Amino acid sequence: MKYLHTMVRVADLAQSLGFYRDALGLEVVHQINVPAGRYTLIYLAAPGDREAQVELTHNWDEHAYSGGRNFGHLAYSVPDIYAATQRLLDHGVTISRPPRDGYMAFVRSPDGISVELLQEGRPLPPAEPWVSMPNVGSW
Amino acid sequence: MKYLHTMVRVADLAQSLGFYRDALGLEVVHQINVPAGRYTLIYLAAPGDREAQVELTHNWDEHAYSGGRNFGHLAYSVPDIYAATQRLLDHGVTISRPPRDGYMAFVRSPDGISVELLQEGRPLPPAEPWVSMPNVGSW
Repeated sequence: MKYLHTMVRVADLAQSLGFYRDALGLEVVHQINVPAGRYTLIYLAAPGDREAQVELTHNWDEHAYSGGRNFGHLAYSVPDIYAATQRLLDHGVTISRPPRDGYMAFVRSPDGISVELLQEGRPLPPAEPWVSMPNVGSW
Repeated sequence: MKYLHTMVRVADLAQSLGFYRDALGLEVVHQINVPAGRYTLIYLAAPGDREAQVELTHNWDEHAYSGGRNFGHLAYSVPDIYAATQRLLDHGVTISRPPRDGYMAFVRSPDGISVELLQEGRPLPPAEPWVSMPNVGSW
């Protein structure tokens, strides 16, 4: 038995690739377009860890998705949480929970999926601008 | 960068272990009880694939969780989809989408989290009782 992926529905494919690929840093592993079913599937994974994937399902005729409390978040470890969070900021992503502790950050996808980033190994020394950065919303 | 886990919130820990561990077949990798915060975290993973985990968060004072459409499902491959689905049935889990094709099945956790099972490699030959089993609800 093996974990394959977590599937999330995305209302806007370009915005979602901007988040998951460009800002978060995942790589597109595989894409399937099904015009007859009017949907597109895109599988992404962390570089160097291509087997554990996130599947984006884009139904061409659905344009908004609600969230629920039963799902919590997707979590990834990163080699440098400050660099990872800065890249998210540079792509216009709001940092819901900045890594004030040098260890943990949360952001949300365009569809409200919460994503946790955790520093690999030990926390980094606390540093600005993160230490002074307030929380925004929930995650 | 590396995928760590998908976190889901669970209202009833015993019921959730009955689903994720006993019926689905995941193994408990790690458990953290935090009485001061009144929550428990349990990390499970497929046997032999312990790095890609599902994290169950049980907040002791929360007793029901709603779902949303932005989250789709968790997916696992299994060596024998009929055996895996039979084990779910034996534990009282409703099969939302039986593996009529010898390839794909869906069930829901006690909190409504959809879980997809996919046959490893090629589909198995279609077989009863699966071929005649209708869908139940959505997934």
